Parts: sequence; structure tokens; C-alpha cells
Amino acid sequence: MPEQPELTIQGWGPAGSHVATVDNTDGAGDGDLAPVADPDLSRALPKVARRYLARELGWSPRSTPPVPVGEISLAPSRLPDTARAALAALLGAQNVHTDRAARLKRAGGKSYLDLLRRREGDASDAPDAVVTPGTTEETAALLAACAGLGVVVVPFGGGTSVVGGLAGVDPDDRPSIAVDLSRMASVQALDVPSSLVTVGPGMRGPALEETLGRDGLTFGHLPQSWEFATLGGYAATRSAGQNSTGVGRFDELVAGLTLATPSGVIELGHPPASAAGPDLLGLALGSEGTLGVITELRLRVRPKPPASSYEGWSFRSWPAGLAALQRLARHDLLPDVVRLSDTDETRANLLMASGPGARALRASLRTRGHRDASLLVVGWEGLPSLVRARMRAAASLLREGNGIRLGRRVGESWKKHRFQAPYLRDTLMDAGLLVETLETAATWSALPTVYDTVRRALRESLTRNGKRPLIMSHVSHGYPTGASLYVTVLADRDDDLPIQQWLTAKRAATDALLAAGGTLTHHHAVGADHRPWLEREIGPLGVEVLRAVKERLDPQGICNPGVLLPE
Amino acid sequence: MPEQPELTIQGWGPAGSHVATVDNTDGAGDGDLAPVADPDLSRALPKVARRYLARELGWSPRSTPPVPVGEISLAPSRLPDTARAALAALLGAQNVHTDRAARLKRAGGKSYLDLLRRREGDASDAPDAVVTPGTTEETAALLAACAGLGVVVVPFGGGTSVVGGLAGVDPDDRPSIAVDLSRMASVQALDVPSSLVTVGPGMRGPALEETLGRDGLTFGHLPQSWEFATLGGYAATRSAGQNSTGVGRFDELVAGLTLATPSGVIELGHPPASAAGPDLLGLALGSEGTLGVITELRLRVRPKPPASSYEGWSFRSWPAGLAALQRLARHDLLPDVVRLSDTDETRANLLMASGPGARALRASLRTRGHRDASLLVVGWEGLPSLVRARMRAAASLLREGNGIRLGRRVGESWKKHRFQAPYLRDTLMDAGLLVETLETAATWSALPTVYDTVRRALRESLTRNGKRPLIMSHVSHGYPTGASLYVTVLADRDDDLPIQQWLTAKRAATDALLAAGGTLTHHHAVGADHRPWLEREIGPLGVEVLRAVKERLDPQGICNPGVLLPE
Repeated sequence: MPEQPELTIQGWGPAGSHVATVDNTDGAGDGDLAPVADPDLSRALPKVARRYLARELGWSPRSTPPVPVGEISLAPSRLPDTARAALAALLGAQNVHTDRAARLKRAGGKSYLDLLRRREGDASDAPDAVVTPGTTEETAALLAACAGLGVVVVPFGGGTSVVGGLAGVDPDDRPSIAVDLSRMASVQALDVPSSLVTVGPGMRGPALEETLGRDGLTFGHLPQSWEFATLGGYAATRSAGQNSTGVGRFDELVAGLTLATPSGVIELGHPPASAAGPDLLGLALGSEGTLGVITELRLRVRPKPPASSYEGWSFRSWPAGLAALQRLARHDLLPDVVRLSDTDETRANLLMASGPGARALRASLRTRGHRDASLLVVGWEGLPSLVRARMRAAASLLREGNGIRLGRRVGESWKKHRFQAPYLRDTLMDAGLLVETLETAATWSALPTVYDTVRRALRESLTRNGKRPLIMSHVSHGYPTGASLYVTVLADRDDDLPIQQWLTAKRAATDALLAAGGTLTHHHAVGADHRPWLEREIGPLGVEVLRAVKERLDPQGICNPGVLLPE
Repeated sequence: MPEQPELTIQGWGPAGSHVATVDNTDGAGDGDLAPVADPDLSRALPKVARRYLARELGWSPRSTPPVPVGEISLAPSRLPDTARAALAALLGAQNVHTDRAARLKRAGGKSYLDLLRRREGDASDAPDAVVTPGTTEETAALLAACAGLGVVVVPFGGGTSVVGGLAGVDPDDRPSIAVDLSRMASVQALDVPSSLVTVGPGMRGPALEETLGRDGLTFGHLPQSWEFATLGGYAATRSAGQNSTGVGRFDELVAGLTLATPSGVIELGHPPASAAGPDLLGLALGSEGTLGVITELRLRVRPKPPASSYEGWSFRSWPAGLAALQRLARHDLLPDVVRLSDTDETRANLLMASGPGARALRASLRTRGHRDASLLVVGWEGLPSLVRARMRAAASLLREGNGIRLGRRVGESWKKHRFQAPYLRDTLMDAGLLVETLETAATWSALPTVYDTVRRALRESLTRNGKRPLIMSHVSHGYPTGASLYVTVLADRDDDLPIQQWLTAKRAATDALLAAGGTLTHHHAVGADHRPWLEREIGPLGVEVLRAVKERLDPQGICNPGVLLPE
């Protein structure tokens, strides 16, 4: 198994690099936890970007580094010795960890709020212990034991949740353990004729792609957290990747899974399709650890696409771009990758990009009347003849919408930088910025209103003392009936009440998007952060149905309490 | 609203015609119920077919007509007067029916067993009353009232269930009412940009297509029951249509629905997609009336395909045809319609077809070494350029599998006769035959074994006294991971114990297909007939989860008891 990169405790990693900073050779993280935040802004953030942001936001770049990792406070483990002994008897002592490094590494996820807390030296959401079961049977026995012991269980995959999925607060304040799935991280079976692979939940995308690649296959799920997140986590949160318009959302690629619950093991899914009653697989997908632990997955794979083509298009305005995308969707001509940036995101990307190519593109768009352009990146993959035929048919629709083809360079440039944003976030936070994202989805008819109201809510909430936020949005997933909307927010951070600043803005944005017909979350899941709104999304009776399912599978409520289901 | 054809009490309709035989002008069926079975076999069943079947089955054609409809015995309604008055107060007296005609028309569905019972004069599964609510609110009030009154509720759409979905036996033997949804049968909203239509559950496909057609749209769900079945029924049973390989199964086309339950109304689904927790919409789909009544549906529509092309291919054997189809699936080249007949079905179809075209085709296949041919019908729909590109790419894979292209005539001929089989069934039953179908699905790897074991089980069960069954199979739905398998069985009927004869064969076939890895049902649903096997499909804990959901929504168990959930 090749060495895998590791997330840092207080961020994503050093900007622009994929350096492993936590030695994790024993699978439980008892290694070096040096901080990696880079105070040298000039190296990470180009001068042009710094200038642009300072002007837009009224922000003065300043150094606000995190406290040293050694100074993060961590309460002593509350796991009783008897419980620890029981878990060690089940899993082996080497698979039960209560040391500082192991616990810190599983403290919360990677949302802006998570990082704020960790940068301030707060790790109060760290588990009391970390265990690493090796099989479905061990996990089921562990859950039954924890139900008896009164110990809360939080499944831990890649630790990349951005909605507090690992930061639930147990109302009964019981001791908690992180169930790290890194020992269940291999390919267990490959059925090539049926295009199905069976994998452990702790496996990551890169390792899966490497294994599949030997048979000429690919899985093709590429979210921004791709380097770190695990397949089990994707299932538990209903992840969507950058190619999901073409290959499908993660939940659409799960043919079956095994769920270990405190009440026993349940096998779900019957590929290729079944009409044998309600869909129970869909209950486990998106369950975020609240029903148990996903211990095995059967996933749909495909042959590596022999051809691929990425290109850029420009539209005179965001509404014109949206209309063009909607026409593609309606005629079943959506590309495999689609990313339409609004005017603000397009302008920021063009202004912050350096080099002669970017300058030429800016000039060209200006002369063609696309000063407030909305940039579209499309990617096509598959058999060469079909890629050509689809591109041609789509191009004709895009031109009808007055789109200007910008060529492959724009597409390839996007592809090259597709995983970089989370690294940049560390740098921006070091320099005194609020930087966070939120996302939703809506029908094509509702999307323009959702877009307007979310922006207004964020702008009103984050404007103060002559400082205002930069709100950049894009569509990254298209469907016949609608599209996702992903919003990135930058603002001068309130250094006194940074958490409150974002909570207020997030609350306003969420209220606004729900009122306009958007969904609470398109691919980030509910976690602890969105749970106050779940009832608005699925109704009180919907919440009751979920509770009934949970009570049957997890009667003691030990499975990730404080997440997903409202109080 | 144009007049809609009606099913007959004891069958589907006169062979080959779509004559309405039940006057249903008041929406509740108090009309003429004359039998329509046609004793003149020579007119309905060509001589060549009769000869072929007689030889294959050891069957002597004989006249076994149903008893006259007037002689069907029907117990008096058990609905107490107080209950009837309560329902009439809720819905209006004109929407509560206890007359013989209304009750008979909602007695059971259209499985072979249903028809055997009705033909023998047995309507013991008829409801005690029929009610026709007009809105979601009325339906919810009705369910709450019935929960209080101790009255069982069976939703009634088209009455075309072939798995006893309308023939559940209540263990508490309470009075029952059929909730006929024919008054909730219109298009309520059409969102063209979002490709979404909102419809009542009692609407049928032809009426929906007519309405959508005015806007250049289509829904495209075409099961064999298309003329009669309702959209609510498709959702409740997870139907699949003949074009589902391309347009998707019905459950994939439901963007949202409203479910009225005894505990209240629940709105499910958030198009285009959501990651806000487990999928509750998937619980209502396939719930077969056991959780409540679907009172509204939001369905995905599409522009009418500007081009379509149907054609036939021949393979030297069934395994060769399967392998070719699997290759198409693997490379994302499955057509929109796919139907691969095994050798027995191909031979029967070719021998029973008359006319010079069929004779020429038989001769041509013989000379090309395709004596035991497996015939494939493929249909392509969409933009002309994409249809051409996909056909060309697929043809190249089919030729690699030594397929012979037979041209469009075979494809168009299949298309022309696609809804005829159920009509023919009446004729065959009149002539002393057992005729029934069953279906499953399996991964491409498991499918050959499923096929072999099901055939063996049926053959062993139905062979007696030198008489043997004719077992014809086809794949009608392809997926990347596997395919459906649809099996038609003909045999000389045991006139003494006809029900027992089929129950024994069905039990053997179901045990066999489950053991080989097939699903209990690919698109017919569970109903009363499959419920003894549901636990084998989803496990005891899966059944417990479903029970927990049902207990929350239907605590009195009034919603279609005896269906779906095992005792």
C-alpha cells in the first residue's frame, strides 16, 4: 500500500502541496503533529490576489496563525478502565488508543468552524478513545458492547466533514470513541463482468483508482476531499464528486452495503435493481453514522474512458449561462463535468490568475462584450465517437445561447487546479480572513431565486464597518430537473467573535435558501451544523420516521448522537 | 377527458382488441359487467400456434370458459352502517359505494391466480366498499377515520397487480374498503424548464402522454399494463417499463410525492438531489399501500425524442446474446429499449408468427447457422446524431459478439405488438392452458445460473403424465451491473387443482432464483404472493426496520394488511 497523505490537525495542508505531516504508520496516528500553517503569505497568495481581495473586502492582510499544536487543550480521556478493557478484549489492545495524538487527529472535521476551534487551541470535541476494528463482525460486536457500556460511537473515515459530522454533542454526555476504519481499507472482490467492486469503508479514492486501474477500470468519484476522504464517508454523507453529472452521485454508485448496527448486521441492496419493497439501502446512505457503521460497500465501476475533452465557454451573464445549461439538461446533453461560475467568481478567478494566458483571456472577453462574463467549464468522457457527437450537439445549443467557445486551455487549467481550494483556505485563514462554503440545489425554475436570496442574506449578514463579503457561486452538478449551487464566501474575519460571525451568516443563508425552495444540502450532508433545519427539509413526520428507524437499530442512541436528527 | 378502456372482471380484454366492456361513466363502475372471453379459439389463436403448443406441451385444446359474471359469488358488504355513514360524511355519499358492480371491479388484480379465482366464480377478495376521495386532505381524513373505525384500506389504481397486491388477507379480518383514486387523475402543474410534472395518482399513462404531448414532452413509461395501470400504482410497486433501460425505471423518474398516512401527510423528495439525510422517498416507492396512499406525484418528463430506431439482431445462442448485451452494458452503450429472447422464446415467436416475412426470416437464420438463435430487439431514441453515433458504436460491439443484424422490420414488429400478451392470455386460459409469468434480476455474473435454475425448477414442477411446460425467457431491462429476466410459462392446466399446480411451480421457481442470487422481483413488486420470501431478500433486521416505519405511520395496521410485510 503506498503511503497516503495526511490532513493536519488545524487545516488541510501546506498550501499547494500534498506533504504528509502526520506519521501514521501504525494506523492510529501516534506520530509527529507539527503545525504546517505557513505565515509567509507572499509565497502562497500572489500579490495580485492579495490586492484584489483587500480592495473587494476592505480587509487588511494580517498574520493570525493558529496556536501551536502542542498548546491545544485536550481533557483527559473519560473512557472508564472497565470499558477500555472490554474494548481491548474485543479488538486487541493494539487497536484501542487513548493517547493525545490519536484523539487529536479524530477531533472534529474540516469545516471553517472546526478549523477556527482547532486554531484557537480548542479540541473539546475530541473522542475519549480511538478504536480500529478489522472486520464487520468485530464492528458489530463493538457496537453491541458499546450499547451495553453506554459509550458513544462516532465512525471516522477521512475526517473531512465540513458540516460538523464528527462534532455532534451527546445530550447524555457519555464517553465517546472514534471508530477509525483505516484497517478496513482494501478491495475485497472485483466482479468485472458485472462492473462491481467490493471494498472496505476506510479505503480512499486514490487507492481504489490505483487498484482498479490495473484492470483498465475506474470508479470516477472526485470530490474536492478526494485525497483524504474515504468511501464509507462518501456513502454516509451522500457525496457528489466533480464528475457526478456524468458518472453519477456517490449514492447512485452504491449497489449494496453492509451496515453494522447495535442491533445486528444488515445487508442492503440487490444489484442491478429490485422491486421488492421500499428501498432500505437509501436509508443507510446519508445516515451519517447515526444508524451504525458501514463496514463494506459494493460499488459500480466502469472502464476507463478512452477519450476525454475539457473546454471553456463564456456567457454574457450568469442568467445567460444558467439558461444555456438548463437547455443542455433538458435535451439530455449535459457533459460529464460541468461548472458554471457566476460573474463574481469568474471575475475573481480571472483577476487572481497570473500569466499571459489569463491576461489575454481577460482582454479577449472584454473586447467581445463579455465584461461580466459567466465562465463555463465542461468535460466530456467516453468513447471518442460519442464524445465527439455529444460535444457537437451541445456546442450547437450553447451557441444558440450566445456562448463563446474559449477552447481547451481553460478546461485543462480548471482540471489541473481542481483539488487546490482547501489548501488555499489555510493560507487565507492565516491572513485574517473568514473563508467558508455552503451549497444547495434547486430546480431550474427555483435556482435563480435561491441564488439571489442566498447572496442577499450573506451580504447583509457579513457587511459591517464598511467591509463587505466577496460571494462567489457556481453550479457544479447538473440534473434534468435542476442543479446544485455552491457558494464560497470570503470576508474580513471578526477576530473577537469569529465563530459567531459565521454562525449568524450561515443561519441567514440557510433560512433564505430553504424559503426559496433550495435543499438544505446537496452534497455536504447534515451533520451537527444543519440539524436544526432538518425538520424544515423533511417535515415533522419525516423526522419521526427516521427516529423510528434509529430506535429500532440503535435503541440506546449510541450511534453518533447530536448529528443529523434534531433534538 | 377521453373515454378510457376498462379491464374485464375475469381477464384483460378480448384478444387483440381494446374494447371497453365496463361502463364506468360515474367513476365507480356501476355498469354492464358482461363477460368478454371469446370461446372461438380459431379466431384468436392462429392454427399454427395451436399446433405448435399442442406438440410442445402435450396439451389438447379444450373449451374452459369462465363462469358467467353474474354467477360470481360475492358476500354481502361487512362495512357497518355507522362506518359507511362516517365515510359518506367525509367524502359525500356519492363517493361511497357498496354495490356489487363497484366491489367486483376492485376484487384482486390480474395475476393468473386472480383470474383463475374470478373465472371459477370466486370474488372472496372483493372489498366491502369502494370510496373515491378527491384530494390529499380527504384521503388523509379518510385514513385517520378508518384507523379509528377499524376499517382496512386498500388503494386501488388500475387493478393490474400480478402479485396479489390487492388480495392481501387481513389477519384480524376487519371490513375493508378499496380507495379508488380515479377522481385524482389530472395534471396539476407542469414546470417545463425543470422537466417536472405534478399529477394525481389515478392518472394513467395514455392520458399523461396526451397532455404532455401538447408541449412536445413525453414521460415514456410503457409497461405492458400501460393502457390500464395508474401512475400511483407504478410508484407503489416500483414498476419498470419497456423503455426503462433508456428513460429509467419508474422509481428513478419520481422526483417527489405526497403520502397520506393514518398519522398525517408527508411530502417526500427534493429535486434535483439532496444530501439531507437518508432517502425517505425511497421508502414510499414500493410501499404497496402498506404505509398509506400516494396522493400526488412529481415526475420527470423529457422532450419527445426527435428520432427513434428499432431493429433486430440474432445471436447463435442465448449465452452469446447475453455476453453481447453485457458488453454493451459495460461500455455504457445499452439501447433505450432492449429485449433479448432465449432460444425457446425466439423459436416460439418465429414458429407462431405467420406471413411471408416470418417464413423468410426463419429460412435466413437456418442457412446462417442460427437454428437455435437468440433474438435481440434494440430501440434507440433521442437526437438523430446521437442515435446514429450510439447505434454505430453498439453495432460494432454486437458484431464482435458474432451478432447478425436483421434490420428494422423485426424491431418495428415487436413495437407494434408490445401490449398484446395479456390479451392473448385470456384466450389461452379459455383453451385449458396454464399461462403465467415471473421475473427477477441478477448481476451479469449471476444471471446465467439464475436462468438455468429457474427453468429447471419450473420444468420439474410442471412436467407430469408426459406433459411438459414451455418456458420462454427474455431480458427486458439492462443495467451496467446486470439485467432483468422475465419468464413466461405455458403448460397444460391441471383442471382439478389449477391453483395448487401454479403455487407449487411458483414456490420452486422462487426458491431457485433466490438461491442463485436473483432478486425476489424486478418490477412486479411483492404483494401477497411474494411476501413469504421478503425476509430472505432483505433479512430479518430489514423486515424489522420496515415494521418500525409502518408502526409509526400506520399504528393500527389498516393500510393494505397481508401485503408486502410477512406475517
